[in-house]
Amino acid sequence: MKSSFLVGLIGAGVGPSLSPALHMREAAEHGLSYVYKTLDITALGIPAEGVGDLMNDARRLGFDALNITHPCKELVIEHLDRLDETAARLGAVNTVVFTDEGAVGYNTDTTGFGHALRTGMPGAPLGTVVQLGAGGAGSAVAHALVTQGVERLVIADMDLDRAQARVEEIRRHHPESTVEATHVDKLVALLPEADGLVNCTPVGMADHPGTPLETSLLRPDLWVADIVYRPLDTALLQAAREVGCRTLHGGHMAVYQAVDAFRLITGIDPDAERMLAHLRELAAAG
Amino acid sequence: MKSSFLVGLIGAGVGPSLSPALHMREAAEHGLSYVYKTLDITALGIPAEGVGDLMNDARRLGFDALNITHPCKELVIEHLDRLDETAARLGAVNTVVFTDEGAVGYNTDTTGFGHALRTGMPGAPLGTVVQLGAGGAGSAVAHALVTQGVERLVIADMDLDRAQARVEEIRRHHPESTVEATHVDKLVALLPEADGLVNCTPVGMADHPGTPLETSLLRPDLWVADIVYRPLDTALLQAAREVGCRTLHGGHMAVYQAVDAFRLITGIDPDAERMLAHLRELAAAG
Repeated sequence: MKSSFLVGLIGAGVGPSLSPALHMREAAEHGLSYVYKTLDITALGIPAEGVGDLMNDARRLGFDALNITHPCKELVIEHLDRLDETAARLGAVNTVVFTDEGAVGYNTDTTGFGHALRTGMPGAPLGTVVQLGAGGAGSAVAHALVTQGVERLVIADMDLDRAQARVEEIRRHHPESTVEATHVDKLVALLPEADGLVNCTPVGMADHPGTPLETSLLRPDLWVADIVYRPLDTALLQAAREVGCRTLHGGHMAVYQAVDAFRLITGIDPDAERMLAHLRELAAAG
Repeated sequence: MKSSFLVGLIGAGVGPSLSPALHMREAAEHGLSYVYKTLDITALGIPAEGVGDLMNDARRLGFDALNITHPCKELVIEHLDRLDETAARLGAVNTVVFTDEGAVGYNTDTTGFGHALRTGMPGAPLGTVVQLGAGGAGSAVAHALVTQGVERLVIADMDLDRAQARVEEIRRHHPESTVEATHVDKLVALLPEADGLVNCTPVGMADHPGTPLETSLLRPDLWVADIVYRPLDTALLQAAREVGCRTLHGGHMAVYQAVDAFRLITGIDPDAERMLAHLRELAAAG
């Protein structure tokens, strides 16, 4: 059985990523020789469109798999030999595995958020869920929410056109689903009907402080998930806990996308709890 | 402290090399994330002269160091930023470490054979030593023998010109040394004066069976070293043991060049005995 793996992360500004530490520590627990390298296109002076060449160079030099992040998740697709169904539906790839049949693309942002929600907030009501933010990360989360059985998904963005475009994309692939777009200024009217709220905006990150909505809109029977994981405990989650909401921090999604990628790359089932504990340590340290 | 290392081996036909297993197993013992990949120029369709580009590609994609083998050990030199003194003297590099000051070249074939001789055959008399074979591996061994204090080194080859060229090279860098070239047909007269014999020809390898000289020339007070390590127990060493000679198999040099490379790459002192035991296991298995 293969016991040595070389993995890279292609994207812009990926230097500070926690993925190398997360993957390598878990691999060591399984007795694998495993190196995970960041391949920062900014530092390398490569345009986002160069992702195909960089991917092929990496493959040629022995990389077994790659994670792909902003701004290359869509651009990488035309360079792949095969796309997993979820990734095809999403139109975005965050994991490429090099196999005998070629380069195969997956999206573990989506499957990762699904796992995070199931395991981190079991039994949470999925009637109406409001998602804040319709960007790239929002796309993966929206697909995951619909796949997890949300009855009515409302995507709110400051740019209504962007929210509408995301809704149409979801409807195309999940025609049976109820998905709506709205402007964030409608949140006051919308939130009282919601069972859950997911923040997919960057607000709450260290360099985007604050909360993505008026915290007076929170109420105890609303669950609140954040995909920001630096810091793990965002101002939104703090406010939600004070109100009495169930909360899910962004580390769950970050870890489960890594869990799913690790499994695709190695064929080994990693210990998600252990990886989550490790992420907490890493987040606390840095 | 750095705990993750990506290393490659550039050369022709390096696929079956034992270096990946040797390095990765030792690294695991030290708790390192360590991947060692073979970069076979034949399989990659790269000419030997392409070693500079391949080296730079590897560096760009995050490799921390490279081992270099046939036919690139000399060709790589012009692409380096700095050469260690031993490698410069030898005109051949088998280890490149990427540092903040650039790509630095070393030769651990030479230091490795020196260590192997000191530790594997302590106190062996170094008056007159006969070296069979003046090829690339012979060059590293000849430098090591002179450096280890051999008083008179005789390099015997079927091609006297090649032996002579090697001798001149050694004299240039060790002007105080006594080094002579001879044709192998002079061995009958030469061996009775010798304290030690080192085989640097490929004879004894699985695909070059036999012994590189008449075994009737062996006598109990002659020590015999072989640099062939596949198999570890060559016909020459078997014959030498039967006669009662002290012997040193080629695994010692193979391991000590890896020991020295591992130390240069990681800054950590590996356990040479453990690596030697591992090499024995690998050699027995395959």
